[in-house]
Amino acid sequence: MERAVRELWAESRDLLGLHSPDDAAAAAADAAMPRAEMPPTPLAFLRDHVSPGRPLLVSSAATSHWPAASLWPTDSYLTDALRSTAVSLHLTPDGRADALAPHPRPSHPGAKCFASAHVRQVDFPTAVRLIRSSDPASGLVAYAQQQDDCLRGEYAAVAGDVDAHVPWASDALGCLPEAVNLWIGSACSQTSFHKDHYDNIYVVVSGEKHFLLLPPTEHHRLYVRDYPAAHYAAEDEAELRLKLELEEPERIVPWSSVDPYPPSPEEAAAQASSFPLYFEGPRPIRCTVRAGEMLYLPSMWFHHVSQSPGPNGLTIAVNYWYDMQFDIKYAYFNFLRSLEIDGSSSKKTDALEDDLEETND
Amino acid sequence: MERAVRELWAESRDLLGLHSPDDAAAAAADAAMPRAEMPPTPLAFLRDHVSPGRPLLVSSAATSHWPAASLWPTDSYLTDALRSTAVSLHLTPDGRADALAPHPRPSHPGAKCFASAHVRQVDFPTAVRLIRSSDPASGLVAYAQQQDDCLRGEYAAVAGDVDAHVPWASDALGCLPEAVNLWIGSACSQTSFHKDHYDNIYVVVSGEKHFLLLPPTEHHRLYVRDYPAAHYAAEDEAELRLKLELEEPERIVPWSSVDPYPPSPEEAAAQASSFPLYFEGPRPIRCTVRAGEMLYLPSMWFHHVSQSPGPNGLTIAVNYWYDMQFDIKYAYFNFLRSLEIDGSSSKKTDALEDDLEETND
Repeated sequence: MERAVRELWAESRDLLGLHSPDDAAAAAADAAMPRAEMPPTPLAFLRDHVSPGRPLLVSSAATSHWPAASLWPTDSYLTDALRSTAVSLHLTPDGRADALAPHPRPSHPGAKCFASAHVRQVDFPTAVRLIRSSDPASGLVAYAQQQDDCLRGEYAAVAGDVDAHVPWASDALGCLPEAVNLWIGSACSQTSFHKDHYDNIYVVVSGEKHFLLLPPTEHHRLYVRDYPAAHYAAEDEAELRLKLELEEPERIVPWSSVDPYPPSPEEAAAQASSFPLYFEGPRPIRCTVRAGEMLYLPSMWFHHVSQSPGPNGLTIAVNYWYDMQFDIKYAYFNFLRSLEIDGSSSKKTDALEDDLEETND
Repeated sequence: MERAVRELWAESRDLLGLHSPDDAAAAAADAAMPRAEMPPTPLAFLRDHVSPGRPLLVSSAATSHWPAASLWPTDSYLTDALRSTAVSLHLTPDGRADALAPHPRPSHPGAKCFASAHVRQVDFPTAVRLIRSSDPASGLVAYAQQQDDCLRGEYAAVAGDVDAHVPWASDALGCLPEAVNLWIGSACSQTSFHKDHYDNIYVVVSGEKHFLLLPPTEHHRLYVRDYPAAHYAAEDEAELRLKLELEEPERIVPWSSVDPYPPSPEEAAAQASSFPLYFEGPRPIRCTVRAGEMLYLPSMWFHHVSQSPGPNGLTIAVNYWYDMQFDIKYAYFNFLRSLEIDGSSSKKTDALEDDLEETND
């Protein structure tokens, strides 16, 4: 079985024309990513990217007409426009929300849980101040985001600075976006490996986003296992000191066990020995999305995201989620993940149905 | 494994909206087939059919402008237009070319081989006469066909009677057809289960074609096994008496073992007991394509075809083969067929690469 699955990994990358940097002589780390200078036609996008499940990076020509392209990376435009707007700020001690963290109970040494951020409503200028001063050393990292169509909700005052949808994607997919989200963070925040049940158009407006991508065929490499859900809570309101609390009653979240950037040498060694299918397999596809660029991330692709700030000290991005088509590819994926190989999963039951659907990017 | 594969069958049919007649209350045997009164737009065709791998039956409005629609079903138009044209006529004793037949050597009782037709060039009026007089009882069934772009080759004189390509399909797929083939036969000919590495637009001009369809996910139900190749040869030139000869040197063809319409009660019992995944599984999707109608048959779908003649005693069809996209669906398919379940395959090696690629429809 493991041999057959490894052949599937190789063949799907080969057919999609996505080779990891190891394979190619390419020096650029993201040489594998299909790129386009101009937005594709709806037909070409559907035929060459959506249907086969192949990512696409479109140059900044795609967004050069957006007012946001020049306004948002400035120091004060957004804080002026949103001076009295309350926004959802996601707070963690280390910039890792919706990610695995050490289990908070001493009775579970070495165990992990699935940790969500402490979310609070603050006025936008305060949010920006907390994002800019984020520092894991001080135990507080802030990330303004809310995956509930927040650009058209909390941030409606500036929604007109970007296109309401991506015309060539909407034409191709035959619908308008289900949600348009805004993300404002710093280099301290990262998003752990997960997948979304959406076709995603991800646009960076300020700074850069660094994606690690794995096709859905490489499901087993993520070692999706069950973790108890927990969330950060404010232990001390004044200083915003956070502590991790398990959810009561217990709730189980299937999540990827793999951390591609382990925070310590010890953790790196533990990861490498526990998750060989990831660390010894083909390298993930790397893609840096720069200000103005658009990444088409096909539904069901696993992605890990880290970021670098722009001139204003912030990483700002907008993403458009389009409802995915549940078709024969989805049926194949579910079949694949129902198969167990080499301890890659802690179970193989139907309870996997919802795995990795809580998303953070 | 078998349970996981059965779930894959159910989920893929469910996601494609293709339920066998057993499932629905529908009385019509082909109620499951997606239908369109008018040809779809290229975008809708790509999005709703090619990308998900979902067949489509388009009404005769699609071909009402073809001169062939009125000319070819008549008694004499084609024989006049092709009076002195030599065409490839496929001859078998029983109308089953590229199908399993009893092994010709008495030393292999009960064994089967993969039998191809005896092909000869005859003038078109002779071909029509032999097709019309086809009769398995007399041991000779004729089928005018050649899967080498024959409409634009042997039949070039009448190729202008149909569209040179299917505009909405060409736009969607981004290419012109690789081959356009003409098929002229009688009710005596049928085509055994196989799949093609093409996206296929199949148009009936006279008579009806009756398709049994299975999605690629149901590969194991076809019991693809290795058979020695053989072909019919003329034992007696004058009477065109055919005998089956094994190819020398031996050539092996992987082919479906399943005959959905066994020729005898004994064969039916043997089939049912040998191939339970087919005979006890969900019924194939049935689709009758009537004169003027177009069937989009997605690449890699298994199909069995039988036919009924039109008013001129002939079944006439044209099909357009478009190069398929080898993408993640294809990688998943290859993975699926590399897995063995319950004796469905005689092997599970890479030698399956070419299975079922010799085609007859």
